[in-house]
Amino acid sequence: MADLFTIMSDPSFTIWERAALSAVLVVAVLGLAYAGFLAGEVLRKDQGTEDMRRISRAIRLGANAYLSRQFRAIALLILLITGLLYFTAGAQHIAIGRACAFLMGSLFSATVGLIGMNMAVQGNVRVAAASRTSFAEALKIAYRTGTITGMLTDGLGLLGGTLIFLVYGEQAYEVLLGFGFGGTLLALFMRVGGGIYTKAADVGADLVGKLEQNIPEDDPRNAATIADNVGDNVGDCAGMAADIFESYEVTIVAAMILGWASFGHKGVIFPLLVRAIGVLSSIVGTYLVRTSEEARAAMKAIHLGYAVSALVSVVGFCLVGFYYLRFPEAGPLAGWINLGVEGLDMRPVWTTLIGIALAVSINFLTDYFTAPEKPPVQFVARATQTGHATTIINGLAVGLESSVWAVLLIALAIFGSWLIYQGTNPTYIAYGVAMCGIGMLTLTGNNISMDVFGPVADNANGIGEMAHLDQKARQTLADLDACGNTTKAITKGIAIGSAVIAAVSLFNAYITDIAKFTGKTYEDIVPLLSISEPLVFIGFLIGGAIPFLFSSLTIRAVGRAAFLIVQEVRAQFKDRAIWEGTKTPDYARVVSICTAEAQRELIGPGLLAVLAPIIVGVLLHKEALGGFLAGIILAGQLVAVFMANAGGAWDNAKKFIEDGHYGGKGSEAHKASITGDTVGDPLKDTAGPALNPLIKVMNLVALLALPFIVRNERQPSLLLWLVVLVGLVVLGIIIYKSKQESPEVLKWQAEIDKAN
Amino acid sequence: MADLFTIMSDPSFTIWERAALSAVLVVAVLGLAYAGFLAGEVLRKDQGTEDMRRISRAIRLGANAYLSRQFRAIALLILLITGLLYFTAGAQHIAIGRACAFLMGSLFSATVGLIGMNMAVQGNVRVAAASRTSFAEALKIAYRTGTITGMLTDGLGLLGGTLIFLVYGEQAYEVLLGFGFGGTLLALFMRVGGGIYTKAADVGADLVGKLEQNIPEDDPRNAATIADNVGDNVGDCAGMAADIFESYEVTIVAAMILGWASFGHKGVIFPLLVRAIGVLSSIVGTYLVRTSEEARAAMKAIHLGYAVSALVSVVGFCLVGFYYLRFPEAGPLAGWINLGVEGLDMRPVWTTLIGIALAVSINFLTDYFTAPEKPPVQFVARATQTGHATTIINGLAVGLESSVWAVLLIALAIFGSWLIYQGTNPTYIAYGVAMCGIGMLTLTGNNISMDVFGPVADNANGIGEMAHLDQKARQTLADLDACGNTTKAITKGIAIGSAVIAAVSLFNAYITDIAKFTGKTYEDIVPLLSISEPLVFIGFLIGGAIPFLFSSLTIRAVGRAAFLIVQEVRAQFKDRAIWEGTKTPDYARVVSICTAEAQRELIGPGLLAVLAPIIVGVLLHKEALGGFLAGIILAGQLVAVFMANAGGAWDNAKKFIEDGHYGGKGSEAHKASITGDTVGDPLKDTAGPALNPLIKVMNLVALLALPFIVRNERQPSLLLWLVVLVGLVVLGIIIYKSKQESPEVLKWQAEIDKAN
Repeated sequence: MADLFTIMSDPSFTIWERAALSAVLVVAVLGLAYAGFLAGEVLRKDQGTEDMRRISRAIRLGANAYLSRQFRAIALLILLITGLLYFTAGAQHIAIGRACAFLMGSLFSATVGLIGMNMAVQGNVRVAAASRTSFAEALKIAYRTGTITGMLTDGLGLLGGTLIFLVYGEQAYEVLLGFGFGGTLLALFMRVGGGIYTKAADVGADLVGKLEQNIPEDDPRNAATIADNVGDNVGDCAGMAADIFESYEVTIVAAMILGWASFGHKGVIFPLLVRAIGVLSSIVGTYLVRTSEEARAAMKAIHLGYAVSALVSVVGFCLVGFYYLRFPEAGPLAGWINLGVEGLDMRPVWTTLIGIALAVSINFLTDYFTAPEKPPVQFVARATQTGHATTIINGLAVGLESSVWAVLLIALAIFGSWLIYQGTNPTYIAYGVAMCGIGMLTLTGNNISMDVFGPVADNANGIGEMAHLDQKARQTLADLDACGNTTKAITKGIAIGSAVIAAVSLFNAYITDIAKFTGKTYEDIVPLLSISEPLVFIGFLIGGAIPFLFSSLTIRAVGRAAFLIVQEVRAQFKDRAIWEGTKTPDYARVVSICTAEAQRELIGPGLLAVLAPIIVGVLLHKEALGGFLAGIILAGQLVAVFMANAGGAWDNAKKFIEDGHYGGKGSEAHKASITGDTVGDPLKDTAGPALNPLIKVMNLVALLALPFIVRNERQPSLLLWLVVLVGLVVLGIIIYKSKQESPEVLKWQAEIDKAN
Repeated sequence: MADLFTIMSDPSFTIWERAALSAVLVVAVLGLAYAGFLAGEVLRKDQGTEDMRRISRAIRLGANAYLSRQFRAIALLILLITGLLYFTAGAQHIAIGRACAFLMGSLFSATVGLIGMNMAVQGNVRVAAASRTSFAEALKIAYRTGTITGMLTDGLGLLGGTLIFLVYGEQAYEVLLGFGFGGTLLALFMRVGGGIYTKAADVGADLVGKLEQNIPEDDPRNAATIADNVGDNVGDCAGMAADIFESYEVTIVAAMILGWASFGHKGVIFPLLVRAIGVLSSIVGTYLVRTSEEARAAMKAIHLGYAVSALVSVVGFCLVGFYYLRFPEAGPLAGWINLGVEGLDMRPVWTTLIGIALAVSINFLTDYFTAPEKPPVQFVARATQTGHATTIINGLAVGLESSVWAVLLIALAIFGSWLIYQGTNPTYIAYGVAMCGIGMLTLTGNNISMDVFGPVADNANGIGEMAHLDQKARQTLADLDACGNTTKAITKGIAIGSAVIAAVSLFNAYITDIAKFTGKTYEDIVPLLSISEPLVFIGFLIGGAIPFLFSSLTIRAVGRAAFLIVQEVRAQFKDRAIWEGTKTPDYARVVSICTAEAQRELIGPGLLAVLAPIIVGVLLHKEALGGFLAGIILAGQLVAVFMANAGGAWDNAKKFIEDGHYGGKGSEAHKASITGDTVGDPLKDTAGPALNPLIKVMNLVALLALPFIVRNERQPSLLLWLVVLVGLVVLGIIIYKSKQESPEVLKWQAEIDKAN
């Protein structure tokens, strides 16, 4: 045991540190155990009538069919990359470690997605069943279903990082890269595939159902209803969980890399301790989420839980920092910032608190731009009166503006780290940014609970509608659904923000690595990455273009898939028996079209993410690749927030009108608001969120490819140039293909043209 | 005379060089004379029936009412800045020069806009009159009307730059900054004000007329018709001309600054010679644009003229370069790239040719993404069948993708300059980029002819419709209008591309200036601007956010103004006499609402452009300001092209459907296509184009403010901090105000709410 866990026998670690690391492991397992406990609790609940079970089963089957097909599709790729990674590291035990860590990272990410999604589809029917008798109980089940995924993310993320550190010690960095990459790559696939699936189904269902036929959402006659509900689970739940898991991993990877360089082992152990506190505070906070039957205050309960978790975290960080971050050998450190205590270095604590503050501010910001009662959504809602076009224009304006404030908040957080570490080595500032990311994701347990709560409540509402529950139950479910829409929107902001902070940390690691692989000092590298260098500027321009290309690819994919769904649903409605509700539509056919399309459409964006950094690095060298990464981070953040919040605003403007304003349901204003919502769907649920893993994947690929790029600059490698050549051809084909309609679309097209 | 023109008595200039400079002046005057000649020709043409004259007069009055109000509104600001600029330069004669040059730049820019617009409104009725008898004649008048503005731009731009150089010689740089800033600032106001005007009128007219009442565009019963036609002139014509004039100026400023630093006076004179050749080749090429009555080949004729101009330019550049760019003192220069001739340095020629190639490629690219018969527009047109939402989604995807290729082309052009100057001082590479900008704008005469041709043909078509011309004339006008839509869209790409290249050149000048004002070498400055520096990265994030904020402000402004127009037009339609066509609507009221709104809405974006660089520079220092500029260039380019091409694609998808596809006019697909067009309008004609001057204004403000920012870093200046404080408050108020509805909107709102 001590042989495997080198740290445990390393005399430079005190007995207390070893105890603390063991405690972190215990907390990680505790988090997982709590998830298990909650799962047991949820599964024991009543599943309601036979009707409800039947609908729930259809959703579950559809969701699992999708995921199993997705996993099969990418299993080969994962194995291939595992093999490739073995050759990217130098020493053999590192190589094995990195390959295994990659496998572990992708497995963990997949597990979080798979279990989270399965719990969600188990939870939704139980929430619907509970709604018949109790609001409080329905809320508790829905929220705790989310918490299961949250605690899984927390537990697995912490477990993986800690284990690798215990085994590899000082060399953990090289291995951690593999761990982060595994999680990230899988999250990218889950985000893109799930996003395409969910939005194709949603857009297809809404366009025909709500807009053309004027029937409510989740009307059982609509053939896309089940696929729509399945989509909520694969996209919002599995995709989102994998995405946040990934940010959670990547920030710990970056913090450990940079912590080692700046503060030695204390710099590595401190973030692990912070994470452990976060797990504990999430357990406490999420457990407290409950309301009374009279109050029905779902949102208030969730906010209270969040506040308690935040408070526990802040107190915990300060205490741990105060007792652990002592550096007597460094001599007296700067005064008031370290509370005037000699040898104490509280700076890592302050940066972690900046992270918590950033998370809270982004939550407020997202809430402001997407909540129905706030001015931005009101602005969009008012525009629905003057038609479809003004609805879209105003939504675009809201989205554009929101991304300004989001990026300013992130700039402010980085500025905070800079202020705290002012005058020191840039590595310290980078460590500060990474710790800010750690702080930001402290409440991951709560965030994911809130996020998954969304699709669970949404599905429960759908089941309620399809199973014709009574009015009181329907009201309970509608209230929970509305609350879930808000919580889901809010956590999107956190997901994007944390992705950017994680990417900035990785970017700093990239710079540190250039120094390492070229055998130069950090100071030597700085001028190479100046924006005054034409190649850096060129890289930067190309990098900025990537999120635009990626978004275009994913939006087109949704459009193509949605076109098929629209035609299929229209065709099924032509069957009078289906329209009159006497015959069940062929749900499975729509599910199967969505699944197949999502798989096909996944390939292009995935390859783009992996190939682009390698091509830029080899063709334009490592400096341009640095500019490229900076460009991606900037454009990625701006575009992702723009899309998420414009989409959120349109969504809630529609809800506002459906609550009876400006003519309410069925009015012209309502139709315009549905157009807005439909436009927003692929932006906020496919293209936007998929940019989070994209930003991180590209940074990680750059980090992994760097040694080869550096070696190639000295001594051109035929193999690498071959990879670039093939890569360019492949990307060309992908982009060309992405603009071709799929055969099914063309078939429909021909029929329409004939009919015209 | 020789006293004033220092260069003429400077012995370091050969007699040949002085002769060449005089020749450049003569060519500039020749360009202006050609414009005068064309103006006389156009004005002598027949103005058609009394009916047509009346409509034309209404458009002319509206257009001039707008411009005179705009000029009055900004006159005070221009005088104020003229005074301020006097204090920004050190030595008194430079200070006077800079202030005067600023005034000259803004006057020239205003003149180009004013005369260009007036010629356009004179031209349109004559085109309509000619259409009754001859296609060839109508085309000639329309195109030559555009050429007047084109040659004015060419002539005044060249005249101003050359005069300043002749007077100030080596110190011309300081003065040229003022010249560029004057043109740029005015262009920003013309672009933003004109853009808001034109699109509010257009959106308002279309929403009520086409979408709600199902009547054709330019139906005389629509109260917004005249305002719509006025808008085409103030936005597309005056705004665009001022914008390109500005790029034309700014590239010559940058080329002269960087040319002096790299090649001495040959580096300054060569760009002037290139420009002169461009003027001559534009005269030749534009004169050749004509077609026969049988062929009716407008587009072909325009393309032929363009090709001839390009050919004349390429030959001219090579010849001038070959005979002039001799540097015997530099010793034998690199081999084949200099044709193996000893002492010859052909590199400036090659970079200029890259510029021409870039212009041609961008034309092709824009054409590909916005021409009706090409796949992207077809892709959008097909989506109209599945409704409003899919139309919007597909248009967004097309726009996003097009910006990727545009930015890659620009990156490629910069890479070309880098390759040509590889291994030399970065100033040379920067000079290469500036010369690439010079090359790109060589055919400005042709480009502006093509651009202004658009609104002239569009207005002529409107007049034809309102004056009920016969079928044959209407067909001629419709054909010219369609051709004008294509040429207008194409030149938008050039305007944005040249703005980015100009901004990159200015950005390089900024870096050179940091060295100058801090008394360090260029090599000392390079590391300061590294993206590894947190403050540079922060500046970079903030800079990227600016185009998003700016777009949001301008889009909201259009929305607000359009809302008022919609309500006004609706109210006028309630008058049955107007609806039945027996009573003329109150056109003037709509024109007046548009004018007032555009003025009010102009202030915010204008102040943002001027204040933001100063605030960032003072608060975060010159390095962060460098990152800020880079961020603006990147995000500005991406967003501007995205908006321009998405808008162009929607516009032409609508035209494609109106040609009878997918059900043609009046079908559901047509309605969806109108939504797309209406959404695209503020993007492609207001927010997108206004980003061009924004990018340049911010770079110029940074250049002008740099000495103060550097001085402030050494010795904080109370005044500057006061400016920043006030600036922050003002920006806060602007952003807050921008989200408030104007009183009129609120009044309408209250009435609507009461009615509901």
